[in-house]
Amino acid sequence: MQRVKIVSTGFYLPPKVQTAAELAPLIGKSERWIITRSGVAERRIAEEPMDEMATKAAKEALGDGPPPDCIINASTTPLQLIPDSSPFIQRTMGMEGIPSWSIHATCLSFLVALNNAAALIESKVYKRILIVSAEAGTPFRDFEDPKSAALFGDAAAAAIIEPTPHGESSAYIDWEMNTWPDGAELTEFRGAGTRHPPNHPTKTSEKDNLFQMKGKQVYRQALLRIKSNLTELYTRNKVSPKDFDRLIMHQASGPAVQMAEAFGFPPEKTVNIIGKVGNTIAASIPLVLATANKNGLLKRGDLLLVGGTGAGLSVGFSIIRW
Amino acid sequence: MQRVKIVSTGFYLPPKVQTAAELAPLIGKSERWIITRSGVAERRIAEEPMDEMATKAAKEALGDGPPPDCIINASTTPLQLIPDSSPFIQRTMGMEGIPSWSIHATCLSFLVALNNAAALIESKVYKRILIVSAEAGTPFRDFEDPKSAALFGDAAAAAIIEPTPHGESSAYIDWEMNTWPDGAELTEFRGAGTRHPPNHPTKTSEKDNLFQMKGKQVYRQALLRIKSNLTELYTRNKVSPKDFDRLIMHQASGPAVQMAEAFGFPPEKTVNIIGKVGNTIAASIPLVLATANKNGLLKRGDLLLVGGTGAGLSVGFSIIRW
Repeated sequence: MQRVKIVSTGFYLPPKVQTAAELAPLIGKSERWIITRSGVAERRIAEEPMDEMATKAAKEALGDGPPPDCIINASTTPLQLIPDSSPFIQRTMGMEGIPSWSIHATCLSFLVALNNAAALIESKVYKRILIVSAEAGTPFRDFEDPKSAALFGDAAAAAIIEPTPHGESSAYIDWEMNTWPDGAELTEFRGAGTRHPPNHPTKTSEKDNLFQMKGKQVYRQALLRIKSNLTELYTRNKVSPKDFDRLIMHQASGPAVQMAEAFGFPPEKTVNIIGKVGNTIAASIPLVLATANKNGLLKRGDLLLVGGTGAGLSVGFSIIRW
Repeated sequence: MQRVKIVSTGFYLPPKVQTAAELAPLIGKSERWIITRSGVAERRIAEEPMDEMATKAAKEALGDGPPPDCIINASTTPLQLIPDSSPFIQRTMGMEGIPSWSIHATCLSFLVALNNAAALIESKVYKRILIVSAEAGTPFRDFEDPKSAALFGDAAAAAIIEPTPHGESSAYIDWEMNTWPDGAELTEFRGAGTRHPPNHPTKTSEKDNLFQMKGKQVYRQALLRIKSNLTELYTRNKVSPKDFDRLIMHQASGPAVQMAEAFGFPPEKTVNIIGKVGNTIAASIPLVLATANKNGLLKRGDLLLVGGTGAGLSVGFSIIRW
């Protein structure tokens, strides 16, 4: 079967930094409390809309290559409900006529899009796919919920997927995803839909339109669900943690990234950027990938484990030969 | 390559009917005006949330077969922003552990999901995929914009996709999709995102949280864009309208469905349900498919053209051997 290669990546961090010291008075906690609990020393705050952030990351990934055959927006915070954000991103990129749509699986949106893109290339539907994730969600932090408000940051990241040229080893090897709806209420933005319609005078409160997260319970459930997910993926592919060169993991929180050690990944294998950017929702996984790529941490032929958890609660991991 | 078959379909229409006569006083127009302009004599009004509607359609499609390997929610109006609606649908279906996510391309969501599902089966990632579209968007009609308010209705529809058994001719043959961002403002729900955040005291008006549509301009642009899309698809596949047994088209409006004649599809080939259900957004295409299937209009081996337009503005059509 046609193999698949991530040929290039790009990312964009808005210039405005918000340090833990700056955030501390807004959420009524100390700088030390924020850094110790969340692991996030600073995060970026977007002053531009997500389509502009997406465009900057996408253009870096596209480089001087041709335009993509297809654009998949894999972001959580949209510009508006209809249309989905992908036509706006395409327009800001100065393009038209390219098929585009959105995939939403919260923090796993990029991974789901990557799995779909790989299948579309394997079945020869497209030859050059742009996946882009851009989040400008910091205005939706709930400052009265300091634990979750300490986590989030804004960012965009993108990747270009193509068929692997003959003679190269790059491949999208396998993936395993599981969704556990008993955890659906652990990470929520309850508004912006039919349950709490924006205009409704009684059904919708201000809190419904802010991020809510039960961090401790997410952590506990994630630990359990990641274990069963990876056992399935490892068994099917006859691999174990020692076979991987790098772990590219969703940066949910400091403790969540440290969880990697419990799964057999020593800190030197785990790309860790949580302290500098926070939890950037769907942009998190491609941002870790693009940062590692830019810093020369990924060598062609390396075996990568890429994934993490997302609201749902979902767990997803992919095995990629870089 | 592994071929793909839509093995079964299902749909659900909420029991509550709203006739043109009942809608007329709400939007300040006559029954005759509504039927003549929109082609919609009646539409259904959901009194249950979209996950319950989705479950009813999905269960009909699943029949007494095994649970799916994967659930793709292809709907526009979500229950809430986070998580996406797919975990809630899975829970209402009484299932857990099945990977699930959402695809959003407004009225083309099902078609995009079908194209993705076909690729996932062709590349042997999954063997039984449930795609479900459910829309409960009628509360977001803008009664001060009678032209668009006359169009919408609620519904759910689902399809199960599997590998084609040996010796059968069923196949997902090809597709062509194009997104034209210069039409992004023609069909909108401007709220529920970062442009017009639900809680914002000045950036967000009541109108931002209601459907807005510039019907005449959509019609004119659609006519132009469908023509170029189909020319590309026909040329690549060496087919013409006379080769197709059925046209399964998004029911955007009465005039939009009648547009099919201009593209060489006589009324007897075009499945037309707009008068009874209206524009059911993402549920529209699978609802036409499931209705035609239930009514015995689809014979195995028939060649189908499936698609239409969506906000974006996007045009997408797939060629399917039923």
